[in-house]
Amino acid sequence: MAGGELGRGLCVVSGASRGLGRSVARAVAARLAPGSALLLVARSAAALGRLEGELAAAWGPALRLRALPADLATDAGLAAALHAARDLWPADAAPPDGGPPRRLLLLINNAATLGDISKAFVDFTSPAEVNSYLNLNVTSALCLTSSILKAFPAEPGLCRVVVNISSLCALKPFKTWALYCTGKAARDMMFQVLAAEEPDVRVLNYAPGPLDTDMQELARTKSGDPEMREQFLLMKQTGQLLDCDVSSQKLLTLLLEDTFESGAHIDFFDA
Amino acid sequence: MAGGELGRGLCVVSGASRGLGRSVARAVAARLAPGSALLLVARSAAALGRLEGELAAAWGPALRLRALPADLATDAGLAAALHAARDLWPADAAPPDGGPPRRLLLLINNAATLGDISKAFVDFTSPAEVNSYLNLNVTSALCLTSSILKAFPAEPGLCRVVVNISSLCALKPFKTWALYCTGKAARDMMFQVLAAEEPDVRVLNYAPGPLDTDMQELARTKSGDPEMREQFLLMKQTGQLLDCDVSSQKLLTLLLEDTFESGAHIDFFDA
Repeated sequence: MAGGELGRGLCVVSGASRGLGRSVARAVAARLAPGSALLLVARSAAALGRLEGELAAAWGPALRLRALPADLATDAGLAAALHAARDLWPADAAPPDGGPPRRLLLLINNAATLGDISKAFVDFTSPAEVNSYLNLNVTSALCLTSSILKAFPAEPGLCRVVVNISSLCALKPFKTWALYCTGKAARDMMFQVLAAEEPDVRVLNYAPGPLDTDMQELARTKSGDPEMREQFLLMKQTGQLLDCDVSSQKLLTLLLEDTFESGAHIDFFDA
Repeated sequence: MAGGELGRGLCVVSGASRGLGRSVARAVAARLAPGSALLLVARSAAALGRLEGELAAAWGPALRLRALPADLATDAGLAAALHAARDLWPADAAPPDGGPPRRLLLLINNAATLGDISKAFVDFTSPAEVNSYLNLNVTSALCLTSSILKAFPAEPGLCRVVVNISSLCALKPFKTWALYCTGKAARDMMFQVLAAEEPDVRVLNYAPGPLDTDMQELARTKSGDPEMREQFLLMKQTGQLLDCDVSSQKLLTLLLEDTFESGAHIDFFDA
């Protein structure tokens, strides 16, 4: 592989089929050492398949690659992801001839949705809608993380790293973004608890900045609050949106430098 | 009524049957003007019935009182609470002879559970358990608030106030309290969004301090982390726990002074 700076390991990326998740998947693939495994999970089989083809062509057999179409908000999807991770990286897997020992378990909790941003707080009167949102955006991240950490417990020389793709919305309320802000604040705190409980796990809440993605297009066209739409439109028009690859590179740099305080919230724009 | 400083209004308290909720219900009842209405909601019918009897004896017909046993985590419970509120305080209700106009809509989102504090983050592998927690502690507070605000829209002279009973856990991670911290952080942000969206609604995230309640007994006996148990036990033994009435009095003072910034998180120990 090109770099291998991350060492030999297993990386799991949720929401890997597009946007930041896809970009992070590519960046990680380029920095894993030979004999590593990469599990990509997303709901969209077609987009995931294209990424799988691209990565397989680029890295060949040096990367054990699995693209799993699954909805992590379902028990079946969660179980399938866990099964695929174990299968891809069995606990007794020996290093390839002359290869380095297993060094890294890296989980990128990236999957997320905006929720219905056309609605004001007072319009969320349906518990089913709110519960469905929290299930995908909070519960699935908790249960995927706990299951993966249980499946790959601490062992000598193994660095276990959990990334939560966070947002400025975890810290600051945005009008008509009640669900997104609530979910992101919930996730930040949840992963802070993990950091407090598990000193041997490195936990990072990474806010990737305003990305030029499909989600941003929704933000500037569907936000219920007109000022929010204008603000996001202006960011697009004045070139303030970030390329996903720039932000995922920043995340990789943070992971490779490995100096962040576990549980910290670090924004793309932080020094 | 004894004081009437809050004016004539409708107050809704969730989780009213014990602890802080009961104490706030008593404190509010003593400060509503004649012709006011008080809706108490809790899951425990027996404890709620006792409080209803007590308040009815103390305030008589000057207070339109309704005690509703309901689980706000269910659609039926939520609908019943909304129906009771409308019934208790119809929009066209005229002030009693010589009485003041309707002045206050006050919703106290107090209902909450600790979740299973014996468990570490990595033990929460069941989505159903996490979803059930978030349903009661996040979704029901959102949907009760949105429904009540829709049912009682802005009108001249009416002050609409929404209180979220928050916690230090909304700001700070506590070991083995993953669900509680996550839920409280989610609620704080959710109500910050409400404050941003609705400038005419007064929103307060009130952290009541460490209260001498059944919940604290759970905290010092059931927390999975031994240091947490010791810390809570020490607080009990050294008299650092607050009486609910002291904390609910502080909340009433904040509401009567009415100088807080809408959406703010204010702790009992703040000046």
